[in-house]
Amino acid sequence: MNPSDPAPGEPRIECVPNFSEGRDLTVIDRIAGAIESTRGVILLDQTHDADHNRSVFTFVGEPEELETALAKAAAIAVESIDLRKHSGVHPRIGAIDVIPFVPLDGSSREECVALARRVAHFLWERFEIPSYFYGDAALTQNRRKLENIRRGGFEGLLKALPDDAERRPDIGGPGLHPSAGATAIGVRKFLIAFNINLATADISIARQIAKTIRESSGGLPAVKALGLELPSRGMTQVSINLIDFERTSLYEVYGWVKHEAERLGTHVAGSEIIGLVPRKAIEMAAERFLQIENFDSGTVFENRLREATRKSEP
Amino acid sequence: MNPSDPAPGEPRIECVPNFSEGRDLTVIDRIAGAIESTRGVILLDQTHDADHNRSVFTFVGEPEELETALAKAAAIAVESIDLRKHSGVHPRIGAIDVIPFVPLDGSSREECVALARRVAHFLWERFEIPSYFYGDAALTQNRRKLENIRRGGFEGLLKALPDDAERRPDIGGPGLHPSAGATAIGVRKFLIAFNINLATADISIARQIAKTIRESSGGLPAVKALGLELPSRGMTQVSINLIDFERTSLYEVYGWVKHEAERLGTHVAGSEIIGLVPRKAIEMAAERFLQIENFDSGTVFENRLREATRKSEP
Repeated sequence: MNPSDPAPGEPRIECVPNFSEGRDLTVIDRIAGAIESTRGVILLDQTHDADHNRSVFTFVGEPEELETALAKAAAIAVESIDLRKHSGVHPRIGAIDVIPFVPLDGSSREECVALARRVAHFLWERFEIPSYFYGDAALTQNRRKLENIRRGGFEGLLKALPDDAERRPDIGGPGLHPSAGATAIGVRKFLIAFNINLATADISIARQIAKTIRESSGGLPAVKALGLELPSRGMTQVSINLIDFERTSLYEVYGWVKHEAERLGTHVAGSEIIGLVPRKAIEMAAERFLQIENFDSGTVFENRLREATRKSEP
Repeated sequence: MNPSDPAPGEPRIECVPNFSEGRDLTVIDRIAGAIESTRGVILLDQTHDADHNRSVFTFVGEPEELETALAKAAAIAVESIDLRKHSGVHPRIGAIDVIPFVPLDGSSREECVALARRVAHFLWERFEIPSYFYGDAALTQNRRKLENIRRGGFEGLLKALPDDAERRPDIGGPGLHPSAGATAIGVRKFLIAFNINLATADISIARQIAKTIRESSGGLPAVKALGLELPSRGMTQVSINLIDFERTSLYEVYGWVKHEAERLGTHVAGSEIIGLVPRKAIEMAAERFLQIENFDSGTVFENRLREATRKSEP
């Protein structure tokens, strides 16, 4: 058996859509129900945050199954979320703000890009929601980065379109859907959303640390970061996306934030993982912290057992 | 499905025998071959160390399968290892020095104790090797601790027996096997063997740190530790067993050794896991180090997927 093949029956594609609703549990539960009730789809995780006013669902399945789940979830989002009345600390351009696909073992970037294209056409034909492609689905180098698409948010796009040709959607448009805005659809690696909370309400410190660590300001490779206020907790947060944890790890980014926070007279109050984290990222953090010289995935009993069981099958 | 039930086909008992041969690869390979060739047994790991002059094999299976593998491995050890000519930095009492059984999900302490008894009788009847029971298989409180059985090593037992009634074997005896000594057979939790190397050749520092952290000298609960020389590397080592990593974790023991080493003017050069480490112990280290507030086993993508897949099966 090829080591990159999945075990029979293991899902091949992950989908992690973000919706611009983090406060109304009725809407969030209806979206979750739409996904869960789709045959073949396994909903692995859902999180929502009132300050971000945003919910994130993680599920896996085959391409057709994911399309069905997204169609049902999108119908609820279009009907329930109105960007003209939406506020939250997280940047966003639409009700169905972003739909990333992640190829797991047994799938490929190409298969996920084809899926992204089909979903974009579907959103336009069915709901008149235009789409932008980002990450490995991007049609231009500039749009590989989600933040370039999202600059100025819904309100910014509303002003720019339809006149600014540079900002026109890839599918549909040229204007936005009046209440549901637009959707960014992408193909990417497993992304780790890792928020580090600071024991200070001074937003300038969180912003300064975010600027120090993010790649776009000359910081750590494959790191995106924003300084955010957390009014409900009286704290501030460095909200981090690790877009390639094998280039910059949890261990490194945590170490940098801790160091910078202490230099600026505060400290790390705690951290949180939004959604899920790959096993390998956790193992890498433990390995680095504990200085284990002989560590590999097979040092972990459960991993070794799974490998050995697969090998011993006919 | 009860969460403590294993998935169908998952092994129920782990066995981790230690043999007093860490230099002669021919013998080590023959022992490995004997285990691997036993139907139903999966050999997960083997390590050997020249300074310790010791080899450790980790395998899983059903009770009868483990007995068969141990019988074959013991025959090779009895024929090849002579304690009268053996030297090494690790304490030992026999050729088949110690045989621990660990109940996994789906087995019990009781089932493993019964297995330990059968193996002890077998070693006596077939090879005239006497046994001591330790851990949860111990017949007296004093013998729960392996170090009480092992005190003075093979040479110490040779002097004490057969006269010292306090030190007589539980099965067989009253004297030792002339070349193969005795065997300690136990039932215990998953043990983590974690060695931390110090950037100093001064053995007194390693010994002092070991004394500070081990439970028997008033240190950390469920921690055993010895200071050892590593002549082949020009270093010293704090050789640690965590016998209950949920009481004292990798994170804590590493933190203490690092702190003490720095206080004594040296530092940690690196660490190593001997054998395997449970997934949960690695996750706990990463969680503590990264200060993740919302972490549980299901935060890890692969764990969540496995749980979800099991749940969705009929």
